[in-house]
Amino acid sequence: MSSERLIYLPLGGAGEIGMNAYVYGYGKPGKERLILVDLGVTFPDMDTSPGVNLIFPDIQWLAERRDQLEAIFVTHAHEDHVGAVSHYHEQLGAPIYARAFTANIARRKMDEFGYSEKSVRTVSPWPEITEAGPFKVGFVPISHSIPESSGLVIDTPAGRIVHSGDFKIDANPVVGEPFDPELWASLAAPGVKALMCDSTNVFNTHAGRSESTLAPEIGALIKGAKGMVVSTTFASNVARVKTLAEAAHGAGRSVCLLGRAMRRMIEAAVETGVLTSFPKTVSPEEAKDIPRENLMLIVTGSQGERRAASAQLAQGSYLGLKMKEGDTFLFSSKTIPGNERGVIKIMNQFSELGVEVVDDSGGLYHVSGHANRPDLEELHRLLKPEVLVPMHGEHRHLREHVKLANSKKIQGVLAVNGTMVDLTGARAEVCGYVETGRTYLDGSVKIGALDGIVRDRIRMALNGHVTVNVILDETDEALGEPWCEIKGLPEEGNSRAPLVEVLEEDLSQFMGRAGRKTLADDDKLEDGLRKLTRQSAQNEIGKRPEVTVIISRLSD
Amino acid sequence: MSSERLIYLPLGGAGEIGMNAYVYGYGKPGKERLILVDLGVTFPDMDTSPGVNLIFPDIQWLAERRDQLEAIFVTHAHEDHVGAVSHYHEQLGAPIYARAFTANIARRKMDEFGYSEKSVRTVSPWPEITEAGPFKVGFVPISHSIPESSGLVIDTPAGRIVHSGDFKIDANPVVGEPFDPELWASLAAPGVKALMCDSTNVFNTHAGRSESTLAPEIGALIKGAKGMVVSTTFASNVARVKTLAEAAHGAGRSVCLLGRAMRRMIEAAVETGVLTSFPKTVSPEEAKDIPRENLMLIVTGSQGERRAASAQLAQGSYLGLKMKEGDTFLFSSKTIPGNERGVIKIMNQFSELGVEVVDDSGGLYHVSGHANRPDLEELHRLLKPEVLVPMHGEHRHLREHVKLANSKKIQGVLAVNGTMVDLTGARAEVCGYVETGRTYLDGSVKIGALDGIVRDRIRMALNGHVTVNVILDETDEALGEPWCEIKGLPEEGNSRAPLVEVLEEDLSQFMGRAGRKTLADDDKLEDGLRKLTRQSAQNEIGKRPEVTVIISRLSD
Repeated sequence: MSSERLIYLPLGGAGEIGMNAYVYGYGKPGKERLILVDLGVTFPDMDTSPGVNLIFPDIQWLAERRDQLEAIFVTHAHEDHVGAVSHYHEQLGAPIYARAFTANIARRKMDEFGYSEKSVRTVSPWPEITEAGPFKVGFVPISHSIPESSGLVIDTPAGRIVHSGDFKIDANPVVGEPFDPELWASLAAPGVKALMCDSTNVFNTHAGRSESTLAPEIGALIKGAKGMVVSTTFASNVARVKTLAEAAHGAGRSVCLLGRAMRRMIEAAVETGVLTSFPKTVSPEEAKDIPRENLMLIVTGSQGERRAASAQLAQGSYLGLKMKEGDTFLFSSKTIPGNERGVIKIMNQFSELGVEVVDDSGGLYHVSGHANRPDLEELHRLLKPEVLVPMHGEHRHLREHVKLANSKKIQGVLAVNGTMVDLTGARAEVCGYVETGRTYLDGSVKIGALDGIVRDRIRMALNGHVTVNVILDETDEALGEPWCEIKGLPEEGNSRAPLVEVLEEDLSQFMGRAGRKTLADDDKLEDGLRKLTRQSAQNEIGKRPEVTVIISRLSD
Repeated sequence: MSSERLIYLPLGGAGEIGMNAYVYGYGKPGKERLILVDLGVTFPDMDTSPGVNLIFPDIQWLAERRDQLEAIFVTHAHEDHVGAVSHYHEQLGAPIYARAFTANIARRKMDEFGYSEKSVRTVSPWPEITEAGPFKVGFVPISHSIPESSGLVIDTPAGRIVHSGDFKIDANPVVGEPFDPELWASLAAPGVKALMCDSTNVFNTHAGRSESTLAPEIGALIKGAKGMVVSTTFASNVARVKTLAEAAHGAGRSVCLLGRAMRRMIEAAVETGVLTSFPKTVSPEEAKDIPRENLMLIVTGSQGERRAASAQLAQGSYLGLKMKEGDTFLFSSKTIPGNERGVIKIMNQFSELGVEVVDDSGGLYHVSGHANRPDLEELHRLLKPEVLVPMHGEHRHLREHVKLANSKKIQGVLAVNGTMVDLTGARAEVCGYVETGRTYLDGSVKIGALDGIVRDRIRMALNGHVTVNVILDETDEALGEPWCEIKGLPEEGNSRAPLVEVLEEDLSQFMGRAGRKTLADDDKLEDGLRKLTRQSAQNEIGKRPEVTVIISRLSD
């Protein structure tokens, strides 16, 4: 056990799509020097995390070992890969390495928190190498749906790891480097010990489509449109935004970018030289004076986000711009599972305005940024890894990807968040489990997903809330009657009397019946009042509300 | 204005998919004799209706005119068409007419509420006619995804209406009557004034597929499976359940039906003679003794519903039956938009158990019960209506269907819930708007969607809750310090002191500063304490909680 080992430990992103965070370590067990690849967020929903602002991986394991952590490497600038860097900077402290575009986005995040921009270090692509303890890390350009996405070559004393990052195989990605099969094949020369590989689209058996296939379709759509055209896509898909803007230009339309994220991404792409040509844009103010048949808006909010530009246009107007009968709204995007309701809602609002809504249901106006199964297989072939560890997927994706690897005589390892894998020997082996989970940013406070705080909020949403108040004097006699206030409950129940009165009547009777022991004991009294309130409400309205009992004791 | 008119008024189902309720009226304006077609429910979700049990159309308009209501006709037994009949029986009272299978289901609902089974009357299909005031109504068999679905011929003094109900064009629906083009064409003989038409699949341009196309695919899947096979579909899709059961039988497997709805539907189908042959089934007890490779379970829960059999199997076991490595779970169903998260969750739970999950992503194991665009056009052609009023669709579906009608020189009328359409003249005209909306069944109480009750619950879910308590003596002096209790909020905020203490400190200072006027005035005091609590919490935890203020005044 005293010999050195190479370990892999996902803290987020393995068993889910979101909040990526992958640890690699090399050294004596327990004393490994560590690096972290990506540090992302995932997004809350009403079902499981109402009121939560953002969700991070629980990095306690890593924070407790911050003196072992050499560096953080960020593969690309999507929120699920870079979104938590500033939130965890205080706890982890390690320098952050990324290519120029990603570093630009990361620095903006650090800046918002008042951290030095120097905490983020810009690196050049492979063959440049960053040394971090026993690791030598290179950023290998790979095509995805955001500029400068990279796979990582991680050379260790125990051999070469390739961490694919998010990727697709695209020979013509419109913006940025095409996928270079020769370059990727060359990485296999010294032998690849393990490939950690994107699994998002493992169930899709079709060949992937290039970003460049969209320009003719989008161009034809915009040329044929009569009124104003508005399109939404992920703001970070700079290639798509460019395709949309150029199609607009080609159809004699001025382009206006709406939404903070949209402008920020294009700005970052221009600043870092990723985007060398982009049609001239007009401001929202200028756009108002342009005839609608000569105007195209490119806006945020492809997932139906409530406050984004698309949702506001659907509700009436955004920055004074309005859509109307005869205009066209194009979703150049795919709805992420779970966001359907929000997207459908704005589609119907546009329908009410008489706006033509076009989406990708015909497969013409969007392509995925992730490798489908045949393209995953292509990467496997190019790299010939001894071991394949699927990542960036739900359990079903990881499992399918393991099966795919095994079918090709590659050892597949199913490692969900918290699973530590020892990659040192001839075969990879699970060597431990670490407690992981989710940390919520709730307002300005970080809380644990299992702290019970959000559970209590969900219960109030389902059951409503009653406050019960009793006052006792110094001899434990009730002063007056108990009374209550309700929130989120009907004012009248089955008996047609006010619910509050029904509850108070039952509470009074309870107080009358309660013995001295109960009245003298806060816990007993509270427990009795809570149970009675819940039962009384159950009888009257068929719900058992959450109850806060306030017992006041006068004593002087 | 004294002449008689024919009106159409959707109260639910037009501008949404769910809670269908369509009123027809004939007579002098304001004195029309009325009939109601369908009276369904829709289902709540955490985003908009947490804690709600069921959602009904707001039928106040109709309830106020119950003496004008002749009858309720139910086209088929799906919950969104029949689910509210018992809940509104007291308010509407009218007799309910349906064909045998639908009537069987409706009677079970009435029975649960203690209403007489006679409130539901079984009718035979067309050419049998039920007279209801000025209306003559016939049930015309039409294929859908439940037995005995019917379109309605509604003959009125102003002409013939055809109400399609939910339908597809299926020449071989496995259970029940095939779509009969000659019968439907014959309905057009006297001329069809208006067709109220299902719009669900208007955006789907492919030809519809027959239920019967599934048997070979499902059969091959089950034959090839090794361990236990479990399949889920809508319980009411009796044809599908039959196809699944026969495929199991053909592969030498015993069939066990799990879930109350599954057993109830098959029972109703057998009782009413709809289902004449169905493989022998075994009980869950018997199933436990059958080798898994000889067993097939057909279970409820195709939409990932938390308490259904599928979700319980995914979590471990249901009635002692467990799935394990090598078993297969088949979703012979489509995920309804909004249910993706629940379905994906159980898919991943099955993946963790090592169960092979098969769904309809390849298009092999499910067909829709609704007519695609070409089949809608076929019905238009057969009936040649003067007017087409799309129903059973969101706004975007209705709008698209109107465009489709207009392109065929049929007058299309876009009438969402609450829109009254006068069908008397040569052209249909919107003649009024009625206030409509949603009624929630919340526990055992009906509440209005806009009553603010659910809004308060959503706010507590997003913001948490604080109870603030102060006691004042008879001279309006505070007795002791104010104190508070929190629910759904972090125990510590930015200052690392207990949140409750931070709030109480700020509340104490407020009480110290408060003038006599404020202290003497409950409203002012409450308002001040609430605002202060919200501001104090905002500073400390970045959230503005909901606040209940309890002011106790001692007076004796």
